Amino acid sequence: RLLPWGAGYAEVINAEKSEFNEDQAACCQISIRRREPGMEEDEEWLILCSTQFLTGYYWALFDGHGGPEAAIIASNYLHYCIKQKLEEVVGGITETRPPMHLSGRCVCDSDPQFVEEKHILAQDLVVGALENAFQECDEVISQEMEATNQTGGCTVLAALYFQGKLYVANAGDSRAILVLKDEVVPMSCEFTPETERQRIQHLAFLFPKLLDGEFTRFEFPRRLKGDDVGQKVLYRDYFMDGWGYKTVEKADLKYPLVHGHGKQARLLGTLAVSRGLGDHQLKVIDTNIEVKPFLSCIPKVNVFDFALHDIKEDDVLIMATDGLWDVLCNEEVAHMVRRFLAEDRANPRRFSELAKCLVCRARGKKRGHRWMLDDSREASYDDISVFVIPLHSREE
Amino acid sequence: RLLPWGAGYAEVINAEKSEFNEDQAACCQISIRRREPGMEEDEEWLILCSTQFLTGYYWALFDGHGGPEAAIIASNYLHYCIKQKLEEVVGGITETRPPMHLSGRCVCDSDPQFVEEKHILAQDLVVGALENAFQECDEVISQEMEATNQTGGCTVLAALYFQGKLYVANAGDSRAILVLKDEVVPMSCEFTPETERQRIQHLAFLFPKLLDGEFTRFEFPRRLKGDDVGQKVLYRDYFMDGWGYKTVEKADLKYPLVHGHGKQARLLGTLAVSRGLGDHQLKVIDTNIEVKPFLSCIPKVNVFDFALHDIKEDDVLIMATDGLWDVLCNEEVAHMVRRFLAEDRANPRRFSELAKCLVCRARGKKRGHRWMLDDSREASYDDISVFVIPLHSREE
Repeated sequence: RLLPWGAGYAEVINAEKSEFNEDQAACCQISIRRREPGMEEDEEWLILCSTQFLTGYYWALFDGHGGPEAAIIASNYLHYCIKQKLEEVVGGITETRPPMHLSGRCVCDSDPQFVEEKHILAQDLVVGALENAFQECDEVISQEMEATNQTGGCTVLAALYFQGKLYVANAGDSRAILVLKDEVVPMSCEFTPETERQRIQHLAFLFPKLLDGEFTRFEFPRRLKGDDVGQKVLYRDYFMDGWGYKTVEKADLKYPLVHGHGKQARLLGTLAVSRGLGDHQLKVIDTNIEVKPFLSCIPKVNVFDFALHDIKEDDVLIMATDGLWDVLCNEEVAHMVRRFLAEDRANPRRFSELAKCLVCRARGKKRGHRWMLDDSREASYDDISVFVIPLHSREE
Repeated sequence: RLLPWGAGYAEVINAEKSEFNEDQAACCQISIRRREPGMEEDEEWLILCSTQFLTGYYWALFDGHGGPEAAIIASNYLHYCIKQKLEEVVGGITETRPPMHLSGRCVCDSDPQFVEEKHILAQDLVVGALENAFQECDEVISQEMEATNQTGGCTVLAALYFQGKLYVANAGDSRAILVLKDEVVPMSCEFTPETERQRIQHLAFLFPKLLDGEFTRFEFPRRLKGDDVGQKVLYRDYFMDGWGYKTVEKADLKYPLVHGHGKQARLLGTLAVSRGLGDHQLKVIDTNIEVKPFLSCIPKVNVFDFALHDIKEDDVLIMATDGLWDVLCNEEVAHMVRRFLAEDRANPRRFSELAKCLVCRARGKKRGHRWMLDDSREASYDDISVFVIPLHSREE
């Protein structure tokens, strides 16, 4: 029998190089209350008699910036938002094809056919609920932060096991991969100013006022200087996957909307991520330019259907903040995971120990004043959080 | 030796069920003039002595709507726009790494390093040139159509062989695939109101006035009616990959911005494609609502590097308008291609004959009043145009 889990296996460890951990983690069981079709809110007493619950399992990592506050609020509320959004659509979730009307009543005879033509499945309701839950949670954070006069934001990587499927919703630069016996399956992709350059530049093209004359929306290989004016240099605009040459004007010397490369890439010279929650008050330093309009709080959701795979005993989901992935690639992590789990299958704490092992590997060892990996590459200086979640129940 | 082609192998045949063919095709050699670095426009006499040419090979299909005019103009101008845009960047194209400055002069010592860090390659300049050429051609069409008081638009699928690489640029619902010995490689994806729903809905969210109160930006499985008001029905907004339920208001009874399914999907009830050239004057019938703001003229460009593949004698690029792909899938086409080409390798007209064969297959045969495929499925009623382009030169 696959799942439920005897326990969530997690490790959250600060890289121990900074004073505060801005990462947060959460995991819990989510009980989704089913209402009988047609039952109204005010028939609460009936619910007590006829309610059934659907159960989901939830894990999430939050990587805060500008303080841990947004990450803390998100870790306290997101699972509640997800529960709420799932309950709103629960009437449509239990069958393969959700009904056109949540009530189940059929207004038009061919409604089931329309739903089928659009290939709408129950899992699409879960995806929609997750998308809406992130947006709702962003609202909650906005209110909480304003009320308590706090600032900051966070990325979110959330996994939900529900009705035989694993949903991974990502908004930010954390990453989830499935390490299966013969395969590594990426379950998320990163949203950074670099990966979302075109979306961000397009918004600045549509609403130039957002840049308040202080930034250029064009991308150049480096920050331009006076000597470049009048020259034709490499550039990209919002509609370009490729590159062109443009004659440099004085306005092009402004700081670029998206600038830098890899881990140094920044949005408005300010943020290293382009999706996440919070940051409602964030302005570019010494200006009135708001960052929030360029951010998205909507996750991309990937679905893994357990019924389509033969899950093996050592198959796991690895979730980690960028602190891990900055220094270890998918293949290195998969190699460590497989070797570690093959060793001692009887150990009930092996998933926790593996999470700790991954964190320690990425943190490296202190040599003089520097932290180094085993192979003499530089170690991670970021916070590092890792979940190791077995896909296979040990109670089989 | 791979390429150049002794001839372009093409067939363009009207499905013979409609009076006019709105498809157009073009193919030609494109000679790109190289200027010596630093040479100015007015030193034209010098160019005559020192010019060299780079050669490209170009094929394109245009599927017109609202008349053939836009397709005709595009088929006459796009290759010229591509030539022009390539010449503008030719100084950066001949080496693997284009220089930061088109002049080749190095303003900052670490410029080559910045270009390398961004992974900018010569092929990115070709991609950028194609993107800019489509935009330029859309401008030309706008002017020509306005001057001659004509209307309409067209999709574009263009292939360019240049410097050992094949570039396929697509804006619309035509399709290109490589049929290789052991593999079928898709070289384009379709842009329709359905595949670009989120982009289109997002624009309507940002600029609600574009819908002039006549359309709803929400997607529903079917057009809603009075009986649905007050009910919770399946819907999607711009930020949703998944589906949710929304309580129907009167405003939701308006015609949806993106409506219908598959070949019936329409943008503003008007257009079946979401990218292409032209349509500058197009308005939703009986309204002042413009369609053009929702259209994109920018192609997605896919690159195939000949150096990374062992090209076999029968390997071909198949380009075709939607008339073919409506009734034949990639695998059916690949099967026909491989069987046909294996038969008679000595025949110099075999690629033309194959193109004709594909067109005839999709057109079907007349049985009574209906046109049927061999396997009794309904045949294509659309115009059908097919290019079969050998990747391997027969002169090897």
